[in-house]
Amino acid sequence: MNMKDEILNLAKSAKEASYALSRLGSVQKNKALLRMADGILQNASSLKRENEKDLKAAQKKGLSQALIDRLTLSDKVINAMASGIQEVAALPDPVGEVVRMWRRPNDLLVGKVRIPLGVIAIIYEARPNVTADAACLCLKSGNAVILRGGSEAFSSNQAIAQILKNALEEEGITPHAIQMLSTPEREAIYFLLELEDYIDLVIPRGGEELIRAVAQHSRIPVIKHYKGVCHIFVDESADFAMAEKIIINAKVQRPEVCNALETLLIHEAIAQDFLPRMVKALEKEGVEIRGCPRARKLIPRLKEAQEEDWYREYLDLILSVKIASGLEEAIGHITTYGSSHTESIITSNYQNAQRFLKEVNSSVVLVNASTRFSDGNQLGLGAEIGISTTKLHAFGPMGLEELTTCKFIVYGEGQIRES
Amino acid sequence: MNMKDEILNLAKSAKEASYALSRLGSVQKNKALLRMADGILQNASSLKRENEKDLKAAQKKGLSQALIDRLTLSDKVINAMASGIQEVAALPDPVGEVVRMWRRPNDLLVGKVRIPLGVIAIIYEARPNVTADAACLCLKSGNAVILRGGSEAFSSNQAIAQILKNALEEEGITPHAIQMLSTPEREAIYFLLELEDYIDLVIPRGGEELIRAVAQHSRIPVIKHYKGVCHIFVDESADFAMAEKIIINAKVQRPEVCNALETLLIHEAIAQDFLPRMVKALEKEGVEIRGCPRARKLIPRLKEAQEEDWYREYLDLILSVKIASGLEEAIGHITTYGSSHTESIITSNYQNAQRFLKEVNSSVVLVNASTRFSDGNQLGLGAEIGISTTKLHAFGPMGLEELTTCKFIVYGEGQIRES
Repeated sequence: MNMKDEILNLAKSAKEASYALSRLGSVQKNKALLRMADGILQNASSLKRENEKDLKAAQKKGLSQALIDRLTLSDKVINAMASGIQEVAALPDPVGEVVRMWRRPNDLLVGKVRIPLGVIAIIYEARPNVTADAACLCLKSGNAVILRGGSEAFSSNQAIAQILKNALEEEGITPHAIQMLSTPEREAIYFLLELEDYIDLVIPRGGEELIRAVAQHSRIPVIKHYKGVCHIFVDESADFAMAEKIIINAKVQRPEVCNALETLLIHEAIAQDFLPRMVKALEKEGVEIRGCPRARKLIPRLKEAQEEDWYREYLDLILSVKIASGLEEAIGHITTYGSSHTESIITSNYQNAQRFLKEVNSSVVLVNASTRFSDGNQLGLGAEIGISTTKLHAFGPMGLEELTTCKFIVYGEGQIRES
Repeated sequence: MNMKDEILNLAKSAKEASYALSRLGSVQKNKALLRMADGILQNASSLKRENEKDLKAAQKKGLSQALIDRLTLSDKVINAMASGIQEVAALPDPVGEVVRMWRRPNDLLVGKVRIPLGVIAIIYEARPNVTADAACLCLKSGNAVILRGGSEAFSSNQAIAQILKNALEEEGITPHAIQMLSTPEREAIYFLLELEDYIDLVIPRGGEELIRAVAQHSRIPVIKHYKGVCHIFVDESADFAMAEKIIINAKVQRPEVCNALETLLIHEAIAQDFLPRMVKALEKEGVEIRGCPRARKLIPRLKEAQEEDWYREYLDLILSVKIASGLEEAIGHITTYGSSHTESIITSNYQNAQRFLKEVNSSVVLVNASTRFSDGNQLGLGAEIGISTTKLHAFGPMGLEELTTCKFIVYGEGQIRES
């Protein structure tokens, strides 16, 4: 069987499985999830053996230590994977929820009911724990899933997927609900992305290059997350201690993630007092600062921010700083250079807080809180399958609900349409 | 200026306008809409003069009478266009609605708030009244719109768009909020479909060929509506008189639209009694019937349904009829051959009604009601921008709410993330 036939068969059997999955009750899905968590824990040693193969290959290929760390299935990672699955089992099931119901003048009773999307393809890079995370969120929301992990994690991913499939079978659920694409060629992904009759959604998780390649080749809707150029605006009336604490948290805690701070905007009326203090605190944490001309006038030793800095997602201990004439200019800067991801204002002024929340249309907009809260778990969605920076279908952190859609149901008593 | 530069400028200025539009209050948007309706009525005679140019060109090109009818701006069509705009003005504004709000354990107050999508491109065929409909729904939902109508309606569309833009200006709203793409080449559409940085959503309205071409070329998310192969299943316990009334309504009232009935499924236990009666009623209305082997055994003069008939959207007075062994087989047939558009069951059995509503995952699923209710106005959405037969973003009839998305807003008091 050639590559295309193999992928077509896999997609068709995922579609077939999705019909059965959409009808599963919560009890059965939760039982299967708990079996999966048990399976992961019971097979920890064989998982580590399979992972060892990937690690050896990675060392041989000379991959970076950061990549090898992400690839490693330690006991800690394996336990976290299992407890992650148990947490998904404990979440409410979105499928079947009646979102609204209303009666029409002709007495038709009309409702909107949540249903699964169908088949979801997840295309991701090295981290093998994504295999378990993504598969479990799809199962809980009644969707079949096609997984395509990075080739560096090939053996680990296969081993994890097999444990999950065994748990499905033990619970009497078709193992076709979880499919692992094992062909290594990139052409396999491109062919998969053409199968719009069988796959309802594609979620690429990884670097911008992967996401752009998927978006460009796909005939299937793609949930995209290009980058997070997050801003904090320190307003004239900000509490300096609060601002400092939040900015350090947003920039320093995990600079490599998408909800970390990249550009700091400071109201001109407080720049002279606040900037030196903030720069000192940031430099103490090892942050390199690139300033606008007005910031450099106050602190000449700052590096100069170039035009392209305002667009940059550093993912590193680097911060661009701009002094703004006020809220208006700050919002304008965010609109021009931002990525619609996450922005926060630090203020004590009621009107400015409300105006920032209203006028900034990024996916997460905060007042007096760290941009690091832009995350499904932190916002209370219970779990996160990804973050969308485009507005279609979902915008911002996506939980189980975003893996569903709504159908209309109509209770009638013989009504026909008049015209 | 060449074609590409012209389109790029147009898309950029639509994006620019969308920021201002997203902040407009309901009062100002409604005032502009009422001005538009007045403008359409006051300029009826000049609209008809412009329309005359299109009609003459259409006659010269030998277009069909059906097409010329759709193209004609009669007094009736012009009045309907104006009252349609007034109705949109009277609808509730979805923008700014707080859909939900909840408090986190760390006291963050998190909410989801509706915001406009941004810039919507509508690509449609001959009917010039779509120009006013689409522009008004986009304005009401705070979106800028780029319109690309069929070349047959060129002069009519330009005249309508100009009236709408004038009304915007009179209300102090940027006329760039409504953009009309006037370049006649199909390449203009394809170029437009690449501008993902400026356009958030594309809605093609027209035949399957147009929609497939748009979907194939677009880098921007597309809301698709391929076809409506709608089913009615007459269960064993159905009230025959109700079934007959609903089936005639669904098949005969407007056979050319997407929510018309295409395939009738009949429970085998009642086929002998119900089929002859139903065939008689349908034939009286001029409907041609194509039957499965079992239906033809009961009524041998029926034409034979071929395998491809079960996939067909006739859009005509033709109906395929199949006798099914029961609910299970009926649902299986709908899953295999359906288009996920609209299906109805006629039954007096409680369990079967509930099971049909639960297990059939088409966008609109009805009990004891005509498929013709699958329509935004009829279901109570107030207006309809289109129908989606794919599940992403929206599924089924789309109203104003479906032209928005939600952002997260977060009220904090200095919270930072612990880990």
